[in-house]
Amino acid sequence: MRDAVGEALFADPADIGPYLTDWRGSAMGRAEAVLLPRSTDDVQQIVRAAGRLKVALVPQGGNTGLVAGGVPDPSGDGRPAMVVSLKRMSRILSVDSSGLSMTLEAGVILANVQEAAEQAGCRFPLSLGSKGSATVGGLVSTNAGGVQVLRHGPMRALVLGLEAVLPDGSVLGQLSALRKDNSGYDIKQLLIGGEGTLGIVTKVALKLAPALADVTTGWAAVPSIGAALLLLARLRSGLGERVESFEIMAADAYALVQRYFPDSRLPVAPGAAFHVLLEVGATAAELEPILATALEEAELVDATVAASGAQTAAFWAIREQVPLAERLEGTAIKNDIAVPVVQVAAFHAEAVALFQRLLPGARPLVFGHLGDGNLHWNLRPPAGADSAGWVGAQQADARRALHDLVMAHGGTISAEHGIGTLKAAELARLCDPGKLAAMRAIKAALDPGQIMNPCKLFGKQQAG
Amino acid sequence: MRDAVGEALFADPADIGPYLTDWRGSAMGRAEAVLLPRSTDDVQQIVRAAGRLKVALVPQGGNTGLVAGGVPDPSGDGRPAMVVSLKRMSRILSVDSSGLSMTLEAGVILANVQEAAEQAGCRFPLSLGSKGSATVGGLVSTNAGGVQVLRHGPMRALVLGLEAVLPDGSVLGQLSALRKDNSGYDIKQLLIGGEGTLGIVTKVALKLAPALADVTTGWAAVPSIGAALLLLARLRSGLGERVESFEIMAADAYALVQRYFPDSRLPVAPGAAFHVLLEVGATAAELEPILATALEEAELVDATVAASGAQTAAFWAIREQVPLAERLEGTAIKNDIAVPVVQVAAFHAEAVALFQRLLPGARPLVFGHLGDGNLHWNLRPPAGADSAGWVGAQQADARRALHDLVMAHGGTISAEHGIGTLKAAELARLCDPGKLAAMRAIKAALDPGQIMNPCKLFGKQQAG
Repeated sequence: MRDAVGEALFADPADIGPYLTDWRGSAMGRAEAVLLPRSTDDVQQIVRAAGRLKVALVPQGGNTGLVAGGVPDPSGDGRPAMVVSLKRMSRILSVDSSGLSMTLEAGVILANVQEAAEQAGCRFPLSLGSKGSATVGGLVSTNAGGVQVLRHGPMRALVLGLEAVLPDGSVLGQLSALRKDNSGYDIKQLLIGGEGTLGIVTKVALKLAPALADVTTGWAAVPSIGAALLLLARLRSGLGERVESFEIMAADAYALVQRYFPDSRLPVAPGAAFHVLLEVGATAAELEPILATALEEAELVDATVAASGAQTAAFWAIREQVPLAERLEGTAIKNDIAVPVVQVAAFHAEAVALFQRLLPGARPLVFGHLGDGNLHWNLRPPAGADSAGWVGAQQADARRALHDLVMAHGGTISAEHGIGTLKAAELARLCDPGKLAAMRAIKAALDPGQIMNPCKLFGKQQAG
Repeated sequence: MRDAVGEALFADPADIGPYLTDWRGSAMGRAEAVLLPRSTDDVQQIVRAAGRLKVALVPQGGNTGLVAGGVPDPSGDGRPAMVVSLKRMSRILSVDSSGLSMTLEAGVILANVQEAAEQAGCRFPLSLGSKGSATVGGLVSTNAGGVQVLRHGPMRALVLGLEAVLPDGSVLGQLSALRKDNSGYDIKQLLIGGEGTLGIVTKVALKLAPALADVTTGWAAVPSIGAALLLLARLRSGLGERVESFEIMAADAYALVQRYFPDSRLPVAPGAAFHVLLEVGATAAELEPILATALEEAELVDATVAASGAQTAAFWAIREQVPLAERLEGTAIKNDIAVPVVQVAAFHAEAVALFQRLLPGARPLVFGHLGDGNLHWNLRPPAGADSAGWVGAQQADARRALHDLVMAHGGTISAEHGIGTLKAAELARLCDPGKLAAMRAIKAALDPGQIMNPCKLFGKQQAG
């Protein structure tokens, strides 16, 4: 491999340690080396050499994933493995403000994408907590979501083109920033959300959005998930598609924020069961009468609109502090599920009842992207329990029970985090059989040597 | 086959004639029978029987395609072929106005989708000339475009879920109306735009958009494509993402409309080189000052805003009459290309110069979806020439020359119509090799018996 890539190969354990574990520290894998290519040509050399040498490759972006998809599998599949980090490929190649697109290398960090778009008078409408580390290639390979999916869709909706090195070492050249292209199968869709199992994304053409003339951020205390959904429908009926974000957190989630971030101030009177953070591409004068009517109709019990940039930032800080506070509190059973929006309220009520029966005392901690039907429906241990021990003992059964309920509502066991290693067994158990068979056939057809990110998505069995 | 599907099989030549030719009459194929399933189960029986009997299946929707993708290939591949028309599967199964989705069978006609959405207080934001015949399954399988792609994307952006029967007779069950789903490869993306070569779409969950409170339609006479793009940028800078449509036609195209639809009235003073039909989700009071500034800046030479529903309809009628007038005038060399938006003006100028040299006297007829970079860059015969003879003699070379120029600009030879039979040879000639190899591998993996829509996309060679 050193013959193929020269100084891009690092094998010193001190150098490669950070590439072998994910940021939660929940997975610690083994690899013989870390490869840091500088160009598509380097990646091509790496993939070809890996094919010859029967080395497994683990593509890695900012290493901020939550399902251990970007680190070597701890148990491995017996073959030597090497991590391919794209972080040196971090150039923005062009920004087209009139055509609303940006072409860049896969290692560019999300925050830098957002900044470059703003400098060009546009915006890149995808954001999430790890934006200071997550890279474009990782965002593409995991079809990342975040807080603006409601209006702009996930990463899949924001990729106009991409270039990737396929498992046979050929280059998929679909990089052009085309708005429409019906010339054959849209192969790049398999790389988007493919979790690095079908190739390594090297360059991307992203779709930008025009800058918003007006943005208003609001906070609403709501009595129930059903009321929150009525509020969303009311906002849409007044503002059309200008509703950009609609995030929910249960009162418990806010209580945790208050404990660990004592400077945080709830923007509304306490006491409601849920809180909604909403952002619209409209003025406060347009938003306020809608909130007033929603108050009259009991869709909310209190609401306020941010009066300054600082207040807007404070609202968003609370939202971003929820997962941080949860982590500071100790470990929990984490879930990332979605159901059709129309099913969310029923699903939530059934899930609460289910765990009252199955795990008395366990405390649901629910927050997420309500407008997308996507909740992080987590479970904290009963008060006073040893959290690590309780999670270790209960997690597998609890997840299966929750996933069964999700499937009964036509939902998904992974809305935005992906499958990686952590959910591979559950995917094998619950995936639509027609889809799983097609996935395996495609993996076997495009990566017969199984060199790309083995054990991810499919688990040990793999394809074929 | 009759054992498998009973009364759903029609073999009388008088019954099956209309299914064997496309609406342009440009392709006339052969088939042993037409199959009219009523359910997914029927489709499954058909596909399984076709696998056993080695019969080729040609899925068909409203049969409004423009590349002979939904009719049997005239020369065939030697095996018996049967058309599978989904037109009996035409039920709307559910509409969820708060979750903004609709679930329906593949044979529902587009106009009926639009109407059902409106009845639920929403809208389905995809429209095209053949909306009275085109079906959802065909729109999905061709990733249809139309006049609202600028704002809402093509069909791919509007499909939340789908069910399809795969070539092995298994059912792909991805029908749930999920806004987010990262549980493995998004296999349905291969069916979208797959032109029926990887399976038969049986049901679809569509994304709806909220109704627009304000819609304003305008007409602008512009001096050049470059000026039109500056106007588009100005609209976006004033209205953000509320620009819904931005259609262009050259003055020649309007002249043809005037000849064949003498009641048509140009909404602005004549004399400009191009005309733009634009529609925004805003009030006339919001749009007019932007147009006034654009006039001062010479981005347009004249503009008007529709003052009534009748005037809006009249503006759109002109746009829809362009292809009709072109057809009444006689045959022409039709093209459906796209380049990145930033390249459109340069591409157009080079294409004009190219054909002045290659085909002196030939008259470009240019119209289309400028905001998407998608032009129907057609060529009419020189004045006085026998059009059928001229087109027959020049078409293949002219298309190749135009396609070469398109590729040099990072464009696509099919923006929205697809490949079908008519462009299969050009796809084989010009497709990115990595993409084409991946397409062939996937076709071979999912349809090893080559029963699904043979000769389409890949031509005679097929995959494998």
